[in-house]
Amino acid sequence: MSHPTAAVSAPTRVAAYAAPSPKAPLERTTVPRRPVGEHDVLIEIKYSGICHSDIHQARDGWGEGIFPMVPGHEIAGIVTATGAGVTKFAVGDRVGVGCFVDSCGECANCVQGQDQFCERGATGTYNALGTDGEPTYGGYSTHIVVAESHTLRIPDGIALDVAAPLLCAGITLYSPLKRWGAGPGKKVAIVGLGGLGHMGVKIAAALGAEVTVLSQTLRKKADGLELGAAYFHATNDPATFTELAGTFDLIVSTVSAPLDLGAYLGLLKVEGALVNVGAPEEPVSLNLFSVIGGNKTLAGSMIGGIPQTQEMLDFCAAHGLGAEIELIGADQINEAYGRVEASDVRYRFVIDASTI
Amino acid sequence: MSHPTAAVSAPTRVAAYAAPSPKAPLERTTVPRRPVGEHDVLIEIKYSGICHSDIHQARDGWGEGIFPMVPGHEIAGIVTATGAGVTKFAVGDRVGVGCFVDSCGECANCVQGQDQFCERGATGTYNALGTDGEPTYGGYSTHIVVAESHTLRIPDGIALDVAAPLLCAGITLYSPLKRWGAGPGKKVAIVGLGGLGHMGVKIAAALGAEVTVLSQTLRKKADGLELGAAYFHATNDPATFTELAGTFDLIVSTVSAPLDLGAYLGLLKVEGALVNVGAPEEPVSLNLFSVIGGNKTLAGSMIGGIPQTQEMLDFCAAHGLGAEIELIGADQINEAYGRVEASDVRYRFVIDASTI
Repeated sequence: MSHPTAAVSAPTRVAAYAAPSPKAPLERTTVPRRPVGEHDVLIEIKYSGICHSDIHQARDGWGEGIFPMVPGHEIAGIVTATGAGVTKFAVGDRVGVGCFVDSCGECANCVQGQDQFCERGATGTYNALGTDGEPTYGGYSTHIVVAESHTLRIPDGIALDVAAPLLCAGITLYSPLKRWGAGPGKKVAIVGLGGLGHMGVKIAAALGAEVTVLSQTLRKKADGLELGAAYFHATNDPATFTELAGTFDLIVSTVSAPLDLGAYLGLLKVEGALVNVGAPEEPVSLNLFSVIGGNKTLAGSMIGGIPQTQEMLDFCAAHGLGAEIELIGADQINEAYGRVEASDVRYRFVIDASTI
Repeated sequence: MSHPTAAVSAPTRVAAYAAPSPKAPLERTTVPRRPVGEHDVLIEIKYSGICHSDIHQARDGWGEGIFPMVPGHEIAGIVTATGAGVTKFAVGDRVGVGCFVDSCGECANCVQGQDQFCERGATGTYNALGTDGEPTYGGYSTHIVVAESHTLRIPDGIALDVAAPLLCAGITLYSPLKRWGAGPGKKVAIVGLGGLGHMGVKIAAALGAEVTVLSQTLRKKADGLELGAAYFHATNDPATFTELAGTFDLIVSTVSAPLDLGAYLGLLKVEGALVNVGAPEEPVSLNLFSVIGGNKTLAGSMIGGIPQTQEMLDFCAAHGLGAEIELIGADQINEAYGRVEASDVRYRFVIDASTI
């Protein structure tokens, strides 16, 4: 609370970790932040999660990346200044920023709270061009200026470090679990126990569902059960697919390896849904009779809109949920990237922004 | 009402048209019908629709067919006798029989009215073995004995000839249209304007949706509009897929040719659903990002349970809906099969059972 609410002069350059060019290691630098506009908040970043997609983009996996690139769309911090027109936030508020920092606010999708599908294109938190034509820089930084419309409130019930990953991993799982009815009396399977999957287990269990983890091996079984799963099965064991046939109301797959969709659809009850939040870049093969028999659903889900992200944060606070994290200093980012790629993290790296 | 309700002696053999062996033309013969059991009704068949799957099975397209085979699972007729325990039907009642004539009635799916997915296996109306171990024979016949549990009431508002195809084609479209929310304010596309598709147009329009037909060419445009569609587009025109991008809440595909799923998913709004009631036997290729972007759904639907089939018949009667049919004599069945395979029917052949 040491900053006056009237302050509107943002730092013009702030410290950050950036990939200077595709595939280059991240290094310390500075990047510009725009002045705090009428409807903006200035956030002092406290923590920033490392999402697998950060690595993909920093290495220009999808091409057309904007370099230097400051990744990070799992941001938790404190408001240190507000624009004159800001009504929802005050200096000192605990806040978060997720995958998008702007959208038109007027199209059908925005109006329905699905701003991640803004018809004019939502502005990514990094590796994007803002409406001012300037590149956006993400959360591996000390400060960020964001429109209050795309700023989330982090309730007091969640520590900021474990809250940061909720802004992407949390909402990515919460949204399909809610939409497809995870709750009491429902059997839900989470495929893959990584950064996304471990939040799926926690949230599905908190929603009251009976949770099963489907992981390649039983290596993480103890973790899975501790996180809230009732059962844990290895997908490298063919017996899993016969024993569990017709079992689940909902399966959420977090993996990006190609799945045998028919095998997973076979695990669903009548009218069950297999929802993909991860996916391979290559097409997969599907026999449509796998969905016709049993009136089944194969769906996808991408993050979640701002209203639902706030709902998710409030839900997590009410249930005492945060991510399982390994807190690192900024000088460990490149090492952490290697460990994420080797699936050697339980379950999310979070950067302590005070070390940037 | 000329038959006594107490009558329980069914004809032991009845006239029918059967395929004597795979790929052989259908010919007149007789087949056995079981005695009318305590919970059975004897139905004098008046009309029997020709479904594309009749042809497929009569030609043993899926293998393991039971021959001689009497196809027909779109049956409309009159009750002429009832077992002593029958409570829902009386002699003289107008009734129908669809794709299944029995199910366990006790499993989770049966209890939920999804008897088509009976866990112990629903008994097909033909080309199946009943619980007595005897083959079932379908609707190309003068009489059939069916459990009252699998007998539907055809309301007075629908003529029996146009009601017959509702028992398969009608429910096959009604079920997904209802489940996926076709109604006022919703834009629904029906892919393919054949026996299934034309019922989809009628039912979706009656439900209050704005209906678009997506057909290979514009050849059937006048028909489509007359059936209730507001728009009609040719899928052999690539412009269709750019002009209509992001348009539909729901697309129901009735075609069994391989679709470019990504192209059709691109026609959906956020959270829209593409539901397949027809499908090619070979696997199709799908890029899962086609469903992840826009939180989209690719689903399947198979016929419908007995309670929903009754609901559909009541709905069709209330809205004056029946199938568009070409009534034929039994001696035209083989010729009709050829015409169905050539897509030369508007829109369903129905056999006048008095000619069998």
